[in-house]
Amino acid sequence: MNIYDIAELAGVSIATVSRVVNDSPMVSEKTKQRVRKVMEENDYTPNVFARGLGLNSMKTVGLMCPDIADAYMARAVAYLEQNLKEHGYNCILYCSGYDIEERHVAVHSILQKRIDALVLIGSSYAEDDENSEKVEYIREAAKQVPVFMMNGCIQGENIYCALCNDFQAAYMAVTELLQSGREEVLFLSDSHSYSATQKLRGYKQALKDAGLSVKDSMCVYVENKIDKARDLLLSRNDLMFDAVFATEDGLAVGALKYAKKRNLSVPRDISIIGYNNSELSVCCDPELSTVDSRGDRLCKIIIDSMMLRLKNREIRSKVYANGFLIRRETTDF
Amino acid sequence: MNIYDIAELAGVSIATVSRVVNDSPMVSEKTKQRVRKVMEENDYTPNVFARGLGLNSMKTVGLMCPDIADAYMARAVAYLEQNLKEHGYNCILYCSGYDIEERHVAVHSILQKRIDALVLIGSSYAEDDENSEKVEYIREAAKQVPVFMMNGCIQGENIYCALCNDFQAAYMAVTELLQSGREEVLFLSDSHSYSATQKLRGYKQALKDAGLSVKDSMCVYVENKIDKARDLLLSRNDLMFDAVFATEDGLAVGALKYAKKRNLSVPRDISIIGYNNSELSVCCDPELSTVDSRGDRLCKIIIDSMMLRLKNREIRSKVYANGFLIRRETTDF
Repeated sequence: MNIYDIAELAGVSIATVSRVVNDSPMVSEKTKQRVRKVMEENDYTPNVFARGLGLNSMKTVGLMCPDIADAYMARAVAYLEQNLKEHGYNCILYCSGYDIEERHVAVHSILQKRIDALVLIGSSYAEDDENSEKVEYIREAAKQVPVFMMNGCIQGENIYCALCNDFQAAYMAVTELLQSGREEVLFLSDSHSYSATQKLRGYKQALKDAGLSVKDSMCVYVENKIDKARDLLLSRNDLMFDAVFATEDGLAVGALKYAKKRNLSVPRDISIIGYNNSELSVCCDPELSTVDSRGDRLCKIIIDSMMLRLKNREIRSKVYANGFLIRRETTDF
Repeated sequence: MNIYDIAELAGVSIATVSRVVNDSPMVSEKTKQRVRKVMEENDYTPNVFARGLGLNSMKTVGLMCPDIADAYMARAVAYLEQNLKEHGYNCILYCSGYDIEERHVAVHSILQKRIDALVLIGSSYAEDDENSEKVEYIREAAKQVPVFMMNGCIQGENIYCALCNDFQAAYMAVTELLQSGREEVLFLSDSHSYSATQKLRGYKQALKDAGLSVKDSMCVYVENKIDKARDLLLSRNDLMFDAVFATEDGLAVGALKYAKKRNLSVPRDISIIGYNNSELSVCCDPELSTVDSRGDRLCKIIIDSMMLRLKNREIRSKVYANGFLIRRETTDF
């Protein structure tokens, strides 16, 4: 007898059963009585919901991201929190920063909070190499609770990854730039994370497949701030490019500001593609062509997987979603 | 059956029961098993743990906001989480939505999490009237834990408010528009929250003090989305205005998009002022003049006050920070 059976017998949704168990005021007294009666008759105890000892579950999920002020992460946290709540789970938030030692401390701390599962948001947790020893602390964490990674990938027991296929998305975007006649595409990034590494691979492969050589000097790194990206490009007179593929929308907007300062017309003189389809991409002028990196989709995959995993069902350790290019005004194809 | 009964039956102290519930490594496995057995046999759930027992602090602060995907709130949560952590506190995040019933449920739920204090982020919790009966549930919550409001104000025991002086900031901004020669200032807002009401008061007072009449038709409300604001202004041919004072940067960017569509030059034909000094304000083109509403400052006030309050010191129930105008490219003064 599990929650599905109870829901069916009581003629309500699983979410409603969950709410009754949590004595949520969102459920009417009448419904509560009906659901509780079914539970009693079938000797169903809510303890079964929880991981391990039952008694010990606080129905809490740990959400960890480097920086909640980042729009991509904020949106992910918003989606996860909203939907986990509907499954009866509250969220502990921990912002770890990007520093590796801080992240160690963060994971250690959040595990002391009796969480049922841990979500690591953003690819920086996977480092630049999924097999790196630097991620051993995450494998250790996964011995205590299931770990779900959003857009990062680490192989290991009890670690489940939902990923945007950044290699494919970057490959497509850069290929389109080249096919539209651009010859010198700048790769502009803020990170060497797992995701950024996949994007770089896609960029390089697209150049190779177009018969062009890859120049390391055309891969430029700068903090993800509009003014920082603009100023860096303004200072680099040695760089010659007629297109920018940026791994974040903020960087792409920086490139747009650079173009304006240089009196370059976009997309006539220079094409620009951003990443993440954030609010920034429709705020700037001209509006930014950008890759939709499927953040909401990844969150949904994580929640669905988590709910199965917490019922001890088998789930896949790695699921991909495909990103796609949204064409706006900074490209001419 | 309460914690005292469990302690007695298990032959341990209340503190030990608390530690078992919290799965503290300070208690031996053998003792844990014994205490858990007693709990199970007596159908005791840790929820019963009352707050205020001292030994019961989980060093956890509840952070509640309507929508963490909102940049203002995300930044506040980032600041609070970061700094509370340095004081040894973890954060439970709860996104309540804007609906009044959802907010009731949210406060009810988060109080069950044994938090030491509750922070309500954003002025929507204060409704449009701080004395409204609609905020009674917050006064009830304050009977259990100290409640800190960021940019909202409710009078009540154990409620502490840190506020931007939105009246003064709006008054200054609109006065500057009028002094620069603008005659028809549109008030563009997305809300009737406490903060929005203060901004509206400042707008009206500035008009009055300039000898102008206040027209209700010039106060326009729309969802805080760039495209929604743009489309609304495009559809309202009845409105005549040469300036926009928006209560959110997103709305101001919508006004900017409207101006572009209408071939109006900014700030020659129309001046625009936003609010919050978000990343959007430096992303758009021309860049937005906007009010810095001192979010970081308010968060700092809240944390400093909370640390004193949790040591049972007296603190002020209401502290203001003054907002100020950041002049960029959408105004000509």
